Amino acid sequence: MEKNRRTLLASRPVGMPVAENFRLEEAPLPLPAEGEVLVHVDLISLDPAMRGWMNEGTTYMRGVALGEVMRAFGAGRVLASRHADFAEGDYVSGLTGVQTHACLPGQQLTRLDLSLGPLEWHLGVLGMPGMTAYFGLLERGQPKAGETVFIAGAAGIIGATVGQIAKIKGCRAVGTAGSEEKCRYLVEECGFDGAINYKTENIEARLKALCPKGIDVLYDNVGGDILDIGLAHLARGARVVICGAISQYNEPQMRGPRNYMKIVTARATLTGIIVFDFQERYSEAIAQLSEWLKNGQLRTRTDFVEGIENFYPALMKLYTGTNFGKVVLKI
Amino acid sequence: MEKNRRTLLASRPVGMPVAENFRLEEAPLPLPAEGEVLVHVDLISLDPAMRGWMNEGTTYMRGVALGEVMRAFGAGRVLASRHADFAEGDYVSGLTGVQTHACLPGQQLTRLDLSLGPLEWHLGVLGMPGMTAYFGLLERGQPKAGETVFIAGAAGIIGATVGQIAKIKGCRAVGTAGSEEKCRYLVEECGFDGAINYKTENIEARLKALCPKGIDVLYDNVGGDILDIGLAHLARGARVVICGAISQYNEPQMRGPRNYMKIVTARATLTGIIVFDFQERYSEAIAQLSEWLKNGQLRTRTDFVEGIENFYPALMKLYTGTNFGKVVLKI
Repeated sequence: MEKNRRTLLASRPVGMPVAENFRLEEAPLPLPAEGEVLVHVDLISLDPAMRGWMNEGTTYMRGVALGEVMRAFGAGRVLASRHADFAEGDYVSGLTGVQTHACLPGQQLTRLDLSLGPLEWHLGVLGMPGMTAYFGLLERGQPKAGETVFIAGAAGIIGATVGQIAKIKGCRAVGTAGSEEKCRYLVEECGFDGAINYKTENIEARLKALCPKGIDVLYDNVGGDILDIGLAHLARGARVVICGAISQYNEPQMRGPRNYMKIVTARATLTGIIVFDFQERYSEAIAQLSEWLKNGQLRTRTDFVEGIENFYPALMKLYTGTNFGKVVLKI
Repeated sequence: MEKNRRTLLASRPVGMPVAENFRLEEAPLPLPAEGEVLVHVDLISLDPAMRGWMNEGTTYMRGVALGEVMRAFGAGRVLASRHADFAEGDYVSGLTGVQTHACLPGQQLTRLDLSLGPLEWHLGVLGMPGMTAYFGLLERGQPKAGETVFIAGAAGIIGATVGQIAKIKGCRAVGTAGSEEKCRYLVEECGFDGAINYKTENIEARLKALCPKGIDVLYDNVGGDILDIGLAHLARGARVVICGAISQYNEPQMRGPRNYMKIVTARATLTGIIVFDFQERYSEAIAQLSEWLKNGQLRTRTDFVEGIENFYPALMKLYTGTNFGKVVLKI
């Protein structure tokens, strides 16, 4: 009989996660109770926020308990349903966890429309990262045509989507990435006006050259030095949108933005984006994003890793910057 | 014949200013050109922002040049006027500099109405600090009755005024200060709901006790650890208003707020206050503040230091926290 293969949080990482923080085990297939749905998880999403979930006290969700299945967004097909809204064969997404089979209450699942794009897009550009890019840029960043949008950490799924939406809205888009190949991707495939290789280039000099009128919207996924350099170049009235701080998640202590007084002198504002605040508008964003995907104004890229046993190396792609596009674990 | 005694910036401080950074000299009395006004400076305002003005590149104004009169707000009476709007004997304020006599274009001076309060108030509660408190709290902080306003650095002129306005608006006011005496002053004279001695008390524990529902408006004058503790206790939807960072001005490198991700998870916003942005509304604020002063809802306190030769010790009161109320140098 088929088993559930699941990855547990075995111990809490201190700094960078190590393989031993996770344990893969086999368990009997769960059986759906009344109102529940059994899902075969085809794809598991790897997200920077996972590092926070591994901590005891977390930022906006409780931490994963030791011995509990590691939290993750996933997508797959319904094997059995005891919820009126779902039937066998439906494709769904939700917080499935890092496992091959998940049993979840129907109200925690979202039915997916595969006519909008392949399953992996529903964990990426049409899923939480796409929603985060869309509402973070448009609602929090309030970009106006002709303005300059600077994306710190642009080659991930969120950053690349933010930059492309900025271009669609008539803005200048400039971002940072960690390799020549990623920078080429941003300019040639995503239509960015410029991309800075933060590992090899003088970020400040390139930023000045690429954003001669300063930064109107700073969309930050990374924190640390790049955020500081960005702050130093804010234009008057700029909006700073904090989405993440991937450079800091594995540090023993967060480093704050040293140049935060620039927010004062530039008459800027700093806010953050928590995607769940826009839940009732996801369908609007999905409709708009899939229209842009269909007419070729928006492109997206998935970095597949095969096999649930490769959860740890897939995760580390994020924290070492070796991913290229949205990292998805294929079961 | 009378001379002008003036204090020049002799060298730029590295870290904490030293006496040798300033030089007192005598010069002939300046003569007003057409459109100018000669003022006898009676009072000179000591402001935390002065530390920034001593640097070469400053935050929002050019730095004072070496050998130039140290920049300062001052108030005094007109000795001679070649500007139609001013006459001998008028009381005025402006950027007079640290000197006994200043010659300034009339349009750079403000005529003072001493029926509203004594001259020193026009450098304090009715001057720039009062304007900064008023617009910083009401416009940037947007406090609503019943909310909690936390003031990091509350015993200075700005902080004490912010807390009292918060009380007038029906808010809870809690602040930090550096001595028992200052804490008593905030609670007993200014009507704060609580004051935390940051030098002797467990700030975090006291903050939790005094702000049980979290902080709705964080008005920050200090930066550093206290800002971080405040951020950790933001209520959902909080407004963070950055006014200054006095704990950081004399540090070799600014330290950023480590807990800035709390702004994201609390759905808070961070902005700053630059008082000059509200110039056309100063008269509104002065009218309101003097009404509150007259009916006893607002109190203020001046810390006089006598003699222009005591500019340096007066300045150091600010950076060592030994001032009590608005520091003013009396000529």
